[in-house]
Amino acid sequence: MFLRNCWYVAAEAREVGRAPLGRLLLGEPVVLYRRQDGTPVALEDRCCHRRAPLHRGEVVGDALQCGYHGFTFGADGACIKVPGQAHPPRGARVRSYPLVERHRYVWIWMGDPARADPALVPDFHTNDDPAWAAASARMPVKANYLLLVENLLDLSHVGFVHKGTIGSDDSGAELELEHGRGFVRLTRSSQDIETPPHNRKQGFGPRSDQTKIMTFLPAGHITIDITTTERAAAEPRHRMHIFLINSITPETERSSHYFWTSTRDFAVDDPNVTEFFQRETTRAFNEDIAVLEAQQSCIELDPAAPTVNVPGDAAGVTARRLVARLIEAETARAVAE
Amino acid sequence: MFLRNCWYVAAEAREVGRAPLGRLLLGEPVVLYRRQDGTPVALEDRCCHRRAPLHRGEVVGDALQCGYHGFTFGADGACIKVPGQAHPPRGARVRSYPLVERHRYVWIWMGDPARADPALVPDFHTNDDPAWAAASARMPVKANYLLLVENLLDLSHVGFVHKGTIGSDDSGAELELEHGRGFVRLTRSSQDIETPPHNRKQGFGPRSDQTKIMTFLPAGHITIDITTTERAAAEPRHRMHIFLINSITPETERSSHYFWTSTRDFAVDDPNVTEFFQRETTRAFNEDIAVLEAQQSCIELDPAAPTVNVPGDAAGVTARRLVARLIEAETARAVAE
Amino acid sequence: MFLRNCWYVAAEAREVGRAPLGRLLLGEPVVLYRRQDGTPVALEDRCCHRRAPLHRGEVVGDALQCGYHGFTFGADGACIKVPGQAHPPRGARVRSYPLVERHRYVWIWMGDPARADPALVPDFHTNDDPAWAAASARMPVKANYLLLVENLLDLSHVGFVHKGTIGSDDSGAELELEHGRGFVRLTRSSQDIETPPHNRKQGFGPRSDQTKIMTFLPAGHITIDITTTERAAAEPRHRMHIFLINSITPETERSSHYFWTSTRDFAVDDPNVTEFFQRETTRAFNEDIAVLEAQQSCIELDPAAPTVNVPGDAAGVTARRLVARLIEAETARAVAE
Repeated sequence: MFLRNCWYVAAEAREVGRAPLGRLLLGEPVVLYRRQDGTPVALEDRCCHRRAPLHRGEVVGDALQCGYHGFTFGADGACIKVPGQAHPPRGARVRSYPLVERHRYVWIWMGDPARADPALVPDFHTNDDPAWAAASARMPVKANYLLLVENLLDLSHVGFVHKGTIGSDDSGAELELEHGRGFVRLTRSSQDIETPPHNRKQGFGPRSDQTKIMTFLPAGHITIDITTTERAAAEPRHRMHIFLINSITPETERSSHYFWTSTRDFAVDDPNVTEFFQRETTRAFNEDIAVLEAQQSCIELDPAAPTVNVPGDAAGVTARRLVARLIEAETARAVAE
Repeated sequence: MFLRNCWYVAAEAREVGRAPLGRLLLGEPVVLYRRQDGTPVALEDRCCHRRAPLHRGEVVGDALQCGYHGFTFGADGACIKVPGQAHPPRGARVRSYPLVERHRYVWIWMGDPARADPALVPDFHTNDDPAWAAASARMPVKANYLLLVENLLDLSHVGFVHKGTIGSDDSGAELELEHGRGFVRLTRSSQDIETPPHNRKQGFGPRSDQTKIMTFLPAGHITIDITTTERAAAEPRHRMHIFLINSITPETERSSHYFWTSTRDFAVDDPNVTEFFQRETTRAFNEDIAVLEAQQSCIELDPAAPTVNVPGDAAGVTARRLVARLIEAETARAVAE
Repeated sequence: MFLRNCWYVAAEAREVGRAPLGRLLLGEPVVLYRRQDGTPVALEDRCCHRRAPLHRGEVVGDALQCGYHGFTFGADGACIKVPGQAHPPRGARVRSYPLVERHRYVWIWMGDPARADPALVPDFHTNDDPAWAAASARMPVKANYLLLVENLLDLSHVGFVHKGTIGSDDSGAELELEHGRGFVRLTRSSQDIETPPHNRKQGFGPRSDQTKIMTFLPAGHITIDITTTERAAAEPRHRMHIFLINSITPETERSSHYFWTSTRDFAVDDPNVTEFFQRETTRAFNEDIAVLEAQQSCIELDPAAPTVNVPGDAAGVTARRLVARLIEAETARAVAE
């Protein structure tokens, strides 16, 4: 059960081109490609004829031709050609999905197309603002997407999972939780912590202050606004501001597509700094993935094993409840309609 | 659910020797070997003692000795020896299956042995007629056998799947369907099509006429009689006659053994031509297998996803109905008996 | 369903150190490590916080710290520290399992801790008696543990499975079965058999007498006391005495941990002889594993396929009945309590 009436990241914009790209999203096969004018298209990745995946076919003009018997579908999903017939059969079509291309991502709406409002796409503008620079990747994770949401909303793990990369013990951080009908926000403020290795490599001294603001938007988006300031006797003090964009799209109940972009408002033209963030963030997130996949396997051994929550889990628990409530409302509305 | 009272190909004749060969057929483990006089034998590949697969054992004389504790079974499946005992236990046996060796194949009857009539073996005589030459292989396919049956009964796919090998667009072909209690036949006639790459390599000019006659015999046999004639101003015109034998035996509901033989009535003594057909047909059928396995995976994602049929599917649909009807009759008869 | 109120081998003693070792036992994730004083500890390998496997964490003093958020558990399973909190939540804990370290093995009690009596650990004293020498290994087997129990209780397989290594045909052996509330014992006596290859390599002549005494202790222990005596005209006759310790611990219903130790009371200081037994026994037991895994797969194809028992199966059948009866009693008692 996934929330359907919301925007998910289907792909990084650069992944989608004229060659069809097949991807499993929320358990459904989807194929992505671009029209001649560059507009992205998402169709059901399953020919309505013999259920061959359409991504094995070819884009012809603005349409997608199945690689098995040549059935051809327009960008709206309607079958427009069947080889050997004057007209395609009435009603032959595959599903088409509303898309928005924004902030270097292609966003997909897997629910009721009538509700697909582009204004609801999360604000990830630092990803295409010239005042900012970005490093990014898509990583496959063999774990349920909510495990990743929890991971990003409880950054106390950083001092354990990432102690060699981006982390240091900030378990004394002050936490402030806010939440509303469509968001959960946690502010995590630490004074005088050991500077994370990551910042040390950028010239920081041994102690720092750090503020992290995590904002969760259902179903799978979390931005993290991180400011780290060196504790030093005098100015100038090292300071680093990162705005980390995370978008997790369920692939199945047990696997996810993890899209992340680390954006920064300094050294925006320095490719060495971009490469530094690309390398270090990849290393750190691979550390998370190792934990998350082990956690998923452990949960599958006994899905009913009890768990304990502590105050540090408040944001994650609130996010899970919010998603559950939204799914419930969506289901109730679907039944009512 | 498979049709049981019919002949399936268990193996190419050359695969079966004195060393036991284990093979899963219709979900059942079967072991094949030859007696001292060369007659092939098929037994249940599961010792009745501790359920070890018998194909790990040894053929001793005409009998098969389990490699675990030495239980030995005659060619009729009866246990004839248990080490350490004077006599084998009464009633100890494994199932034995009727076999026929014909046309370079070993045929197996997985249903009621009393109904196993050798006269019902399909006529694949071009495979051992000295006027013909053959190239052949067995290929494992991770797809339900009926997907392969449909594939072979709708050759409109050739212009898409095989456009670099044996195919050219013949979507304008004229189709003629015949069917009866035990067969489905489709004749596919094309005038003035682009000559397939395969025939170009044999010296044909750019345009050809082609007739393909596909005959389906339940549950998994399809012969394809293909005549391609070069369109040329004057004689002699290139002409190629191929009789393609296909036999698909279910391994499980999701996987199949695909046996094919490409027979020809020309250049029968030329090993280069045999090698040409071996190589080109293997390449082409690997193209089919890639599609079929992708199709199987896509179907498994949502087995209830609807499909659309078009006139080109008539033969495949008729074949599926024929198989379903035969299985239904077989089940009804089993209940009645 | 496994018998729980009994000792299983969790690990060879040498496998357990200060670094946590994760292992699946009876379908449950268990983590093993040693305290500072060397005492082994076994805890549930699943943090009660977010269900990360604890074996990915670190041993800190005598406690185990989760590698995800740093929850720390004492050797009794109680959570003693949560980073960022003054006190751990009341009742937060993971399961801890009674252990005994004895005879170079770490023994675990997966049932009711109150019943965990160290006196019930099987006597494997030859494994740490200075008058004996040992070769040993742990082997993973993709088969139910009872298939391995049966294998070891019916050594008539030796002449078939191991005919190139440790076996020769002794199907004429005299068998004597004893059994009681907590054991099954089979004595297998052979006169004038072909000397096994294994003994030939140690200088034996072509014919020998052999006695093997197999003692099964539920749920997964079998010792085999093997005496082989060369048949020779005059003294000195070659004689070899081996006490083979086997302990099979279920990993899942379909896989097992096979611990074996081959102990001997001769050439105890000769590393070449130890290496000989290490190599030859490994080879032979890999032959068993190949059969057992094939058997497991064959059983899974049709778990209800009938089997036949013969007199040689009496010990295995009795052992299966004993285990079934003990599980039944354990279940009845659990319901009653």
